[in-house]
Amino acid sequence: MSSPAVLRVAIIGTGFMGKMHAHAWRTAHRFFPLDATPEIAVVVGRDPDRTAAAATEFGALASATDWREVVTRPDIDVVDICAPGDTHAEIALAALAAGKHVLCEKPLANSVADADRMAAAAEAAPDVVAMCGFSYRRTPALSLARELIAAGRLGEIRHVRAQYLQDWLSDPEAPFTWRLDRARAGSGTLGDIGAHSIDTAQWLTGDRIANVSAVTRTFVTERPERDEHVGLGGRAADGAPRREVTVDDAAAFTATFAGGALGVFEATRMATGRRNANRIEINGSRGAISFDFEHMNDLEFYDAADPAGEQGFRRIQVTEPEHPYAAAWWPAGHGLGYEHGFTHQIVDVVRAITERGPVSPSFAEAAQVQRVLAAVEASAAHGSVMTVVEGASS
Amino acid sequence: MSSPAVLRVAIIGTGFMGKMHAHAWRTAHRFFPLDATPEIAVVVGRDPDRTAAAATEFGALASATDWREVVTRPDIDVVDICAPGDTHAEIALAALAAGKHVLCEKPLANSVADADRMAAAAEAAPDVVAMCGFSYRRTPALSLARELIAAGRLGEIRHVRAQYLQDWLSDPEAPFTWRLDRARAGSGTLGDIGAHSIDTAQWLTGDRIANVSAVTRTFVTERPERDEHVGLGGRAADGAPRREVTVDDAAAFTATFAGGALGVFEATRMATGRRNANRIEINGSRGAISFDFEHMNDLEFYDAADPAGEQGFRRIQVTEPEHPYAAAWWPAGHGLGYEHGFTHQIVDVVRAITERGPVSPSFAEAAQVQRVLAAVEASAAHGSVMTVVEGASS
Amino acid sequence: MSSPAVLRVAIIGTGFMGKMHAHAWRTAHRFFPLDATPEIAVVVGRDPDRTAAAATEFGALASATDWREVVTRPDIDVVDICAPGDTHAEIALAALAAGKHVLCEKPLANSVADADRMAAAAEAAPDVVAMCGFSYRRTPALSLARELIAAGRLGEIRHVRAQYLQDWLSDPEAPFTWRLDRARAGSGTLGDIGAHSIDTAQWLTGDRIANVSAVTRTFVTERPERDEHVGLGGRAADGAPRREVTVDDAAAFTATFAGGALGVFEATRMATGRRNANRIEINGSRGAISFDFEHMNDLEFYDAADPAGEQGFRRIQVTEPEHPYAAAWWPAGHGLGYEHGFTHQIVDVVRAITERGPVSPSFAEAAQVQRVLAAVEASAAHGSVMTVVEGASS
Amino acid sequence: MSSPAVLRVAIIGTGFMGKMHAHAWRTAHRFFPLDATPEIAVVVGRDPDRTAAAATEFGALASATDWREVVTRPDIDVVDICAPGDTHAEIALAALAAGKHVLCEKPLANSVADADRMAAAAEAAPDVVAMCGFSYRRTPALSLARELIAAGRLGEIRHVRAQYLQDWLSDPEAPFTWRLDRARAGSGTLGDIGAHSIDTAQWLTGDRIANVSAVTRTFVTERPERDEHVGLGGRAADGAPRREVTVDDAAAFTATFAGGALGVFEATRMATGRRNANRIEINGSRGAISFDFEHMNDLEFYDAADPAGEQGFRRIQVTEPEHPYAAAWWPAGHGLGYEHGFTHQIVDVVRAITERGPVSPSFAEAAQVQRVLAAVEASAAHGSVMTVVEGASS
Repeated sequence: MSSPAVLRVAIIGTGFMGKMHAHAWRTAHRFFPLDATPEIAVVVGRDPDRTAAAATEFGALASATDWREVVTRPDIDVVDICAPGDTHAEIALAALAAGKHVLCEKPLANSVADADRMAAAAEAAPDVVAMCGFSYRRTPALSLARELIAAGRLGEIRHVRAQYLQDWLSDPEAPFTWRLDRARAGSGTLGDIGAHSIDTAQWLTGDRIANVSAVTRTFVTERPERDEHVGLGGRAADGAPRREVTVDDAAAFTATFAGGALGVFEATRMATGRRNANRIEINGSRGAISFDFEHMNDLEFYDAADPAGEQGFRRIQVTEPEHPYAAAWWPAGHGLGYEHGFTHQIVDVVRAITERGPVSPSFAEAAQVQRVLAAVEASAAHGSVMTVVEGASS
Repeated sequence: MSSPAVLRVAIIGTGFMGKMHAHAWRTAHRFFPLDATPEIAVVVGRDPDRTAAAATEFGALASATDWREVVTRPDIDVVDICAPGDTHAEIALAALAAGKHVLCEKPLANSVADADRMAAAAEAAPDVVAMCGFSYRRTPALSLARELIAAGRLGEIRHVRAQYLQDWLSDPEAPFTWRLDRARAGSGTLGDIGAHSIDTAQWLTGDRIANVSAVTRTFVTERPERDEHVGLGGRAADGAPRREVTVDDAAAFTATFAGGALGVFEATRMATGRRNANRIEINGSRGAISFDFEHMNDLEFYDAADPAGEQGFRRIQVTEPEHPYAAAWWPAGHGLGYEHGFTHQIVDVVRAITERGPVSPSFAEAAQVQRVLAAVEASAAHGSVMTVVEGASS
Repeated sequence: MSSPAVLRVAIIGTGFMGKMHAHAWRTAHRFFPLDATPEIAVVVGRDPDRTAAAATEFGALASATDWREVVTRPDIDVVDICAPGDTHAEIALAALAAGKHVLCEKPLANSVADADRMAAAAEAAPDVVAMCGFSYRRTPALSLARELIAAGRLGEIRHVRAQYLQDWLSDPEAPFTWRLDRARAGSGTLGDIGAHSIDTAQWLTGDRIANVSAVTRTFVTERPERDEHVGLGGRAADGAPRREVTVDDAAAFTATFAGGALGVFEATRMATGRRNANRIEINGSRGAISFDFEHMNDLEFYDAADPAGEQGFRRIQVTEPEHPYAAAWWPAGHGLGYEHGFTHQIVDVVRAITERGPVSPSFAEAAQVQRVLAAVEASAAHGSVMTVVEGASS
Repeated sequence: MSSPAVLRVAIIGTGFMGKMHAHAWRTAHRFFPLDATPEIAVVVGRDPDRTAAAATEFGALASATDWREVVTRPDIDVVDICAPGDTHAEIALAALAAGKHVLCEKPLANSVADADRMAAAAEAAPDVVAMCGFSYRRTPALSLARELIAAGRLGEIRHVRAQYLQDWLSDPEAPFTWRLDRARAGSGTLGDIGAHSIDTAQWLTGDRIANVSAVTRTFVTERPERDEHVGLGGRAADGAPRREVTVDDAAAFTATFAGGALGVFEATRMATGRRNANRIEINGSRGAISFDFEHMNDLEFYDAADPAGEQGFRRIQVTEPEHPYAAAWWPAGHGLGYEHGFTHQIVDVVRAITERGPVSPSFAEAAQVQRVLAAVEASAAHGSVMTVVEGASS
């Protein structure tokens, strides 16, 4: 391994997520005191030219096309997996086998079996950090919500209502992408954004979903093939060949938490007008919180202990020195953006590595999310309540 | 019957709803041109003294204790039923048999069988008006939403998410009331406020719920008996005897509409911090609407036909001359309150009577809501998807 | 005078304000326990037919065309002046001379001299109630704000920023109305809606404006004559003759309060998109409040005593039993509308009469608002700071 | 000069602003295609150790303590001035004399005379870029507002109301800082944040403030000396010596724009509860915009051309490919933060250098803001309207 003062990172993947992670790796130590300084040693992709360009863009020292070779290189400390879900298991298992720390984008895998194998491998390697990238947890407003709930400020949790609403597929002529192909993406809206809601809900409440009753829907069953020159959300050329959509456009389910709370979840990419409404609202016997990522710097908090006549949801701007992660940034009221959750994730990964502290979300936690997703799909298929299977590692 | 210029009304019930209806009967003709002027001829209640006091308070000409006698009196034109749900069927059937117009508070009845009998009786009496009091329909913002959807502005409807969130039972020491007794109330939160969401969703979309998958929950299973001197939402005395809650505190269900839309519904009286959040959001292929009764004068409308880069939910203050019911009231921006839905309901009842026009919600429509409620309860009991039974009159 | 159990009212004026007041007189005793029951004895207007129709619409017992005769009739207890501002002084002085209680719409008069004469007459008649109709004070959210400030919850007041923004004159082709004629209306936007902001600001803070520095503006200097068939805010026919606008379209001023607070005021009828944004925000050393009439049931309250990290404006829905006026109405979260401020005003007038309690806003208070308005106009004319003259009765 | 492919930057200042600029210089070329790649060659500060630490933190190649030496070094292309206002003129004039491009934080200088000298020097050096750092202009929502107004979508501008509200000085025990010392800071709240509102208002409208009528206020006239160990906004130790505050805590003024619009401005650091409410609202004859930096990704836009009955402010999430700067970042609805305005500023500086395009805000524009500030101070001192002096370079 390299000197403890430097942490050498291999980013696997050259797309949007790789770019985001690279920004976070470059930025974390500029704002947070860390015991090791990350360095993006290499970016790995399939196409040599495109990967070389990404390496320059990402501020990496080099590029490569063979991830198998990279994950065993002695100079690499951390393998950061930003490739599509169908590659996660193989890469992560190889990296763990090579003794590398692993940060893996969500969903952890495209199947419960793969996720469980990954969780088992992580447990078998206690000396390395293995974390799954549910980055929304590191949004300061949600971190604050977690603190309030953990401190008992909401009392007994009764209601969880989580919606993740996007609309970039609401146009039936929006072109096909790999995210609509079950073979690549594993599942559709459910696994892509519904997984975030499940993780957030379980993490905030410190509870687990015990069973679900679900319905899924594909509103647009075939779409034009993507023209290379049209971006995400654009329209394909008239007369383009059509391809079948093999994943869900939307999923909704009710859930019972082990502790008794009642959950209502909805995820869709067809909620016209909602660009990225990642919302969660939790009501307990003593208080409530409400959050919408479209105003990501705000947490609405209701304290039932406020005097009668003065009660109401208060809008906390989670940008103050007292708030999670916020002291490192700008003065109060000068908000953060989407990318900061990723930067905070890197801060926590680095600290877990240097301080040998607990890791969250661990692969085991992420595998449990995968089992909830599997129960949702099974419930939707059978039209009945489905219990979430406990994993060996849970 | 009395002269066409006057419409003589009997209000059955002296509680909160009776008081509200009385206000609406007194007020409608002061702001809207009507071909008949309502007059509250009599208020009917069990207790003579309390009923006499209510008659004075309501501005009624007289009081009475025997509804059977009243509903057959020749001088009565309209019977307005504001008593608890377990009395609706008997009173309504008697009134219809006597040839009276009937306005009946929701839910129409405590059972599908009763509701269907009422719908059949109404159909058998085409010369009288029989309307169910889903008053939220007459909130101008929701009436405008209906107009926009009916005009095709939302395109194909894909998503309906409706929440009705209250919190007056979140304190476990909040006392028992008849609304928590299945024998009186029929059902709990589901029938009380969930019924509103169902009616609103079906009416706005012009569609019907075909099947549901539901869960219900009673979080507080017994409560102290109510002290007569403590109001709704207050706390009972320490050591008060406890009584079992026999209805649901909360209900949640997913739904499939006949036209293919995916519905997500939630109703609760335990959503700490939400006093009366009657919310509905509908996404279609061409646009969306969003509404929350806590800001009842606003309708959020998203038009996907707006130019790229200028799209967004616009907050329409539904207080302008162009808006449903609004021209009768104050200048633009000078909002209305909860009671105006009831006043508008009276306007529509009176016009249905004098113009012999269509009535909505008819008893048949309200009976169909009752069948959805029954399907929800059956689904919650069986843990599986349940089809909404079609009624004879549907 | 009539029996103490009945209060006989003469409404002077048949327009929008007369209609509003009539509604309030009919409604107050239906919801609030009062020691006297109001009865609208007579409506007074210029045109006999129109006034007779108004009497029917308002629920009055009779109509009349000679206010001089009416205000001296022995059976009249209260004279309620809803006619344009240029008539207020003469009617009010006659009514007070006749020993009648007087409720006078704002602004109290069109000149400081008239206002001072009215205030002097009111002080000389301590046995009758003389109140000016700044009805916004009776919006529960603003009444709650006043309670919080009076209880010291905001500490030392430093900032008052009040805006009253409307837009019904933003179209240059919106027709001329009497409100644009200085001879009738006294002043323009300033006196019409700016007066509300001044009254609200002084009443909430319990302080007085000591000096002002102002600018006024008339953006549209002539407008088409109103076609009788076109309503407020409509457009006149092409080629209609034009008439000069002799009042301000907008006014803005900074103000110093006697207690040291810094005020910023703006009133306009040209704020495109703002239908009735009557806003006020007050910051003190210990807290703050924020209000916008477009969401009139909400008060935003910030308490600097909340723990660090949990601070934020909380949205109080001012609809609970603990809140001013609210217990008489509907359950929590079931909002009130514009008209309720007027109903509450009648409640307070009747109680002031039956309980011989203090009256607020008194004519003296309203005359002081008039002196602020005069200082604003003088400051705008001279381009320099102008001190608000103290009145004899202040 | 160095090769055109690299742009070597000297950052003068090691504080909060220096750190922010460094982040922007490191980040701009990672997300935007630029013809030159910035490199932070040196950071300059007074204290050698602290400056060396800042250089490491900022990702700079070196540190230095003598700005005079640095600004004439042949390897430096750009001098970026992030030191307090009293140093701006001297540094900028030296840098311009040495033929360097200059980016200077706002306010441009502490006096009009200095600002005018700087503007003259910039005009005399047409081959270099001289820009003033009014970074809020580069917030995408405000850039979009500018586009809409420039395209005539708001019609004739009538109203500008701008507030910049902070509260970090509302506690009288908050310690003294150099920002409260007129000798260092030039002015107080007015120059610090009021300057932003003036620049934004003039830039958005494309108009200039012609005259002002102002009031300023210092609510807390002395404060405890800062303990070195207490951060901004913290409290000093009890018994700390006190120092006189020589600047304004708050300023408010009305303004007349050359084109006739009426402006109302307010800036304060005592608006309890408002952390960074940089708000602007503009109403024109055809539409309006409204913005609050506390929700910096949203622009509210009102289009008076929308059909009657469908009008309302629409919330545009300014995060879409069509929006200024946004295509370089994340998917729609994934918001940006405070720092992005600075990154965009660097993008524009670099492009102005490589493309020899127009620069905005130029030193001349910034000097004109300074003249408005001077007029505000003069008006406050004299209690009368003050005309904004035209500059030689205006």
